[in-house]
Amino acid sequence: MLIKEIGEFNLIDRMSAIIGTPKRPLVAGIGDDCAVLYPPKEKLQLVTTDMLVEDVHFSLSTASPYQIGWKSLAANISDIAAMGGEPTFAFVSVGFPKNTTAEFIDDLYLGMKKIAESYEVDIVGGDTVSSPEIIINIALLGEVESGNQILRSGAKAGDAICVTGDVGGSSAGLAILQNSLSIEDTEKHLMPIPRVTEGRLLAKSHFVNAMIDISDGVASEVHHICKQSRTGAELYMAKIPLSPNVIPVAKQLEQDPCRFALYGGEDYELLFTCQYDKVDILREQIAQRCNTPITLIGRIIDNSSLITIEDEIGEIAILKPRGYDHFTPSE
Amino acid sequence: MLIKEIGEFNLIDRMSAIIGTPKRPLVAGIGDDCAVLYPPKEKLQLVTTDMLVEDVHFSLSTASPYQIGWKSLAANISDIAAMGGEPTFAFVSVGFPKNTTAEFIDDLYLGMKKIAESYEVDIVGGDTVSSPEIIINIALLGEVESGNQILRSGAKAGDAICVTGDVGGSSAGLAILQNSLSIEDTEKHLMPIPRVTEGRLLAKSHFVNAMIDISDGVASEVHHICKQSRTGAELYMAKIPLSPNVIPVAKQLEQDPCRFALYGGEDYELLFTCQYDKVDILREQIAQRCNTPITLIGRIIDNSSLITIEDEIGEIAILKPRGYDHFTPSE
Repeated sequence: MLIKEIGEFNLIDRMSAIIGTPKRPLVAGIGDDCAVLYPPKEKLQLVTTDMLVEDVHFSLSTASPYQIGWKSLAANISDIAAMGGEPTFAFVSVGFPKNTTAEFIDDLYLGMKKIAESYEVDIVGGDTVSSPEIIINIALLGEVESGNQILRSGAKAGDAICVTGDVGGSSAGLAILQNSLSIEDTEKHLMPIPRVTEGRLLAKSHFVNAMIDISDGVASEVHHICKQSRTGAELYMAKIPLSPNVIPVAKQLEQDPCRFALYGGEDYELLFTCQYDKVDILREQIAQRCNTPITLIGRIIDNSSLITIEDEIGEIAILKPRGYDHFTPSE
Repeated sequence: MLIKEIGEFNLIDRMSAIIGTPKRPLVAGIGDDCAVLYPPKEKLQLVTTDMLVEDVHFSLSTASPYQIGWKSLAANISDIAAMGGEPTFAFVSVGFPKNTTAEFIDDLYLGMKKIAESYEVDIVGGDTVSSPEIIINIALLGEVESGNQILRSGAKAGDAICVTGDVGGSSAGLAILQNSLSIEDTEKHLMPIPRVTEGRLLAKSHFVNAMIDISDGVASEVHHICKQSRTGAELYMAKIPLSPNVIPVAKQLEQDPCRFALYGGEDYELLFTCQYDKVDILREQIAQRCNTPITLIGRIIDNSSLITIEDEIGEIAILKPRGYDHFTPSE
């Protein structure tokens, strides 16, 4: 059934039924002019927002509505994780064409609902409008104990640069889908896992000085941290943990595997800097709670104009920030 | 200059410069994964979000980027006003085509900045993406003292139904622009004034039982209040205060002026229900602080399936909810 046959207000009722009742107490949710919430007590509030546009951020030819719903919220949860916080309330604005089917919308919201439940996020508001293509904007609230928030700006010369998990897997997954490669490893692209538990442990350790999530690629994120912290950085390509699909994909497409790791983006791993001699302790602490490896990939240096990468044979080059820029045509 | 020549990160720096420094204290704003805020102390938190799409919600042929910026934030501020609250922090996601000029973006943000300053709103985050047409999503936070929040669901049988200001002026203004009429009264359409001071006074009076802002038209808003409050309503068309441009526009277009008032939408006045014998007190209280009239336009009745309107000659008809539905083709 097409949504133009259902009408806006019946559609909102239908979405509300999928979203279900919030777990946290609140004064008013969907159905009033605003959501009315109890604010965090004795904690800081986190807010992030992301806009996703069809055929810019996702394509219906490579992702199901369920996966698009999951990933839209995952990207926002990852931003909360990157501050060391926990997500709480989500507000979902969706635009779609009048000839969209109700089943499509159901699946989109079921995907969002699934990840919301996994991360104890309550969807308590939003907006529904018509638009020429699918547009999803999520605003996500979260909270973190005062003093535990980790900004991009705290990196110090001498810090180790580390990443959780592995990188390049999302863009390699996209390459699999776009080129119909016979490699079955697209999960990291389609349904990424935000690192909230890892972010919480890192924040509570008090050894971490700066953190960011990898949404635009390792190169871009290191540049962001260095810009905000007024530092430089040295990365070691040989140490960067590649996702299992990167080498086979790079081989089939005859591309440099480093490209996926450095400039791929959407891995939603955490990149952080910490006291150099605390990397092993952090690795153990994380290992005790999650199955997520922590890998040292570089170090922060004083010179704020210099960000370099050493390749496998020891040659050192300037690391460009590239990664995804929404407006500049790609090279 | 086109934004594709500037690049995403320079564009964000440019927007940040226009937006300026927040007035309220905060831990981190634009430039990190999340904004990090001090939550409201001993108050409830309000959150609202609205998505606006080019050629669905606004047209570049009838509104300037400055006016579009103003109105986008005005619509959200109005939702906070409708709860009796005060707006605090805004998060602005914008999508635009790569061939948009930097001057267009500047003007859009200058319009938002202007209304943000007028209502003491700090813009502290957002997202910037490319999209086939202009898309604006704003998530706005606010706060209200616990006990002063006014929901849609509190209307009681016997309540008076009142509106602030006058209605129909926005849709009549749009008709002026779309039909190039020689009537100079389009302000209410292009740069609406949200009723925050009025909403605050109404909330603090404790005589108001339900409130909503007029974004979809009087008919639709009364239906929302009745649905949430499980009541019915009687409206008196002769009492509904028409904006000054409604009669001349209706005359030139040979349309029923009631249509603009009941189904026009985007007036961003407040529609509220209160104890019947308190209307005069509220009118005086508001008059002391603002120049905004309060008009009694109907009353709440017990029968929850019945919403009627009495026309100028005393005939009573069922009031349809129509107003703006984003997905159902208009009649």
